[in-house]
Amino acid sequence: MKILVTGGAGFLGARLARELLKAGQLDGRTITELAIADLFPPPADLGTDPRVRVYTGALLDQAALFASGFDGVFHLASAVSGECELDFELGLRSNLDSTRVLLEGLRKAGNVPRLVFASSVAVFGPDAANPMPELVGDNTLPSPQTSYGTHKLMCEYLIADYTRKAFIDGRSARLMTVTVRPGKPNGAASSFFSGIIREPLAGVQTTCPVGPEVTHPVSSPSSAVRGLMTVFQASRDAMGGRLALNLPGLNVSVGEMLQALELVAGAEVRQRVRFERDERIAGIVANWAKGSTADRAAALGMRADASFQAIIEQYIADCRHPSYPADALQGLDR
Amino acid sequence: MKILVTGGAGFLGARLARELLKAGQLDGRTITELAIADLFPPPADLGTDPRVRVYTGALLDQAALFASGFDGVFHLASAVSGECELDFELGLRSNLDSTRVLLEGLRKAGNVPRLVFASSVAVFGPDAANPMPELVGDNTLPSPQTSYGTHKLMCEYLIADYTRKAFIDGRSARLMTVTVRPGKPNGAASSFFSGIIREPLAGVQTTCPVGPEVTHPVSSPSSAVRGLMTVFQASRDAMGGRLALNLPGLNVSVGEMLQALELVAGAEVRQRVRFERDERIAGIVANWAKGSTADRAAALGMRADASFQAIIEQYIADCRHPSYPADALQGLDR
Repeated sequence: MKILVTGGAGFLGARLARELLKAGQLDGRTITELAIADLFPPPADLGTDPRVRVYTGALLDQAALFASGFDGVFHLASAVSGECELDFELGLRSNLDSTRVLLEGLRKAGNVPRLVFASSVAVFGPDAANPMPELVGDNTLPSPQTSYGTHKLMCEYLIADYTRKAFIDGRSARLMTVTVRPGKPNGAASSFFSGIIREPLAGVQTTCPVGPEVTHPVSSPSSAVRGLMTVFQASRDAMGGRLALNLPGLNVSVGEMLQALELVAGAEVRQRVRFERDERIAGIVANWAKGSTADRAAALGMRADASFQAIIEQYIADCRHPSYPADALQGLDR
Repeated sequence: MKILVTGGAGFLGARLARELLKAGQLDGRTITELAIADLFPPPADLGTDPRVRVYTGALLDQAALFASGFDGVFHLASAVSGECELDFELGLRSNLDSTRVLLEGLRKAGNVPRLVFASSVAVFGPDAANPMPELVGDNTLPSPQTSYGTHKLMCEYLIADYTRKAFIDGRSARLMTVTVRPGKPNGAASSFFSGIIREPLAGVQTTCPVGPEVTHPVSSPSSAVRGLMTVFQASRDAMGGRLALNLPGLNVSVGEMLQALELVAGAEVRQRVRFERDERIAGIVANWAKGSTADRAAALGMRADASFQAIIEQYIADCRHPSYPADALQGLDR
């Protein structure tokens, strides 16, 4: 089968591509070709696999590629939340128009490909007329408070309609905040959820822009990737007749995250994080979900990460992969 | 103030334009110019008012007009539900892309105009994972089952985001099914809700494509127009911090509609309606709301029509307007 991963050069997309190539099959069918479409070329290890085809450039220009007859698509490409708040047109172009081009291409191909859309917990937000529940669930009324969340939600509904019309077999899976991400901070308002673990482990002092009492649903990269693959392989019946679901999240406070860091890496590492409030980030995060439930994902057999320590241990193990910076664990005394 | 009514040549848009011109003011400000943008020219009585400017053509081509500095906008232009089910691209173009062009124009104008978007009860639908309640309310999770409803919902969320960013001051008001519409049946799947009253009053035999037990929330044209004007004039605070609300509907069954017709116009008129199931229409209608609530509209002082008899009486009175067909009441013995 021919698979397309948009955003396949990104952190999560590349990890998903590796998992797919390692498994060699998906939903019982051999993967003969894996196309990676992204603004940037993928990490070196992906580019050398003979099954991989690389398409570098804006998704807006890939209409012909999208119509070329894929059997399965993972649509992860996205500008991130902080970027979209700063550049409104970028968000419309990258997150809404690009998805339109992708869906039209898949429709024109005519083979009703299966598609998994990486949506986000950012579709939820507070709403004066209907306050956000403590835990956002599959049936919570979305009320996004960022352009990023707005466009994700619009795409969920558009994908549901393309699916209803039998142009594609689409599903939307809402990712929780994925942590720990390697590399540099990115423009996502949630970037600090990785930074407060990644930087101290690398021996770098860092600040946390929100207080220790802030709670949020998070997941490890491997749990997120497993979630996307599980949703791809679920039958339409098992999806429960609706097309957007929450992926499992571990509901954890910033204080608990730092406590876990101390347990795993020691007090000295933990001390490299200092609280320094950033009003712009704190304002965005104040409108985010405090925690989540994922009943429909649970019915598909998915579980949240066992603990935040386990998430940190996964990151430390990941740091041995050649795509991770050589000095990623420079601050860790072991 | 300069007002724009998109779809202002249509049934509801023209009625709204007349009401605005008659009032001469809106929200305490004198209306100096009323622009009507539609595919077709408006009824003759509107074209002759010196305050009216007519812009005929596709909204997609009116970017410059939209950016020309309106103080208030009523966005009613739309392809109807049945059409969009038959022509998927028409729906995307007319209901999604056109709204995009309108919003971008208003954003570029830079004066943060107020906008009321005519959304629809069609945003609601059944959902296997979360069944539709008997009555759909402001806080019901939307699950549209038509492209029309999907695009309306997407536009609601986009308008909320443009408003959050302070590019416009937008509000979305979900119209219930407006009846009795004059003239010919149109492509809307809901067309029969008008046809079963309009045709027998004109002396014409007609069929009803769904059973008498089917219930649905409806409103008279004057109630719908009043609702849109009330939402325009509400303060942002009074909107309750969220931007889409249900307009009031009268929850009524097809059987009760025909009973009201008999009470108002006699048994002979009622007998001109014969039940003849149309599977395509019945299938669409089966996924519609059986009734609605409108708590937020009620808080703004809006009420549903008093009875379906009152709605029929309103239609009969309207038939005296020169824009209505001369033979509209040919079947009525009075």
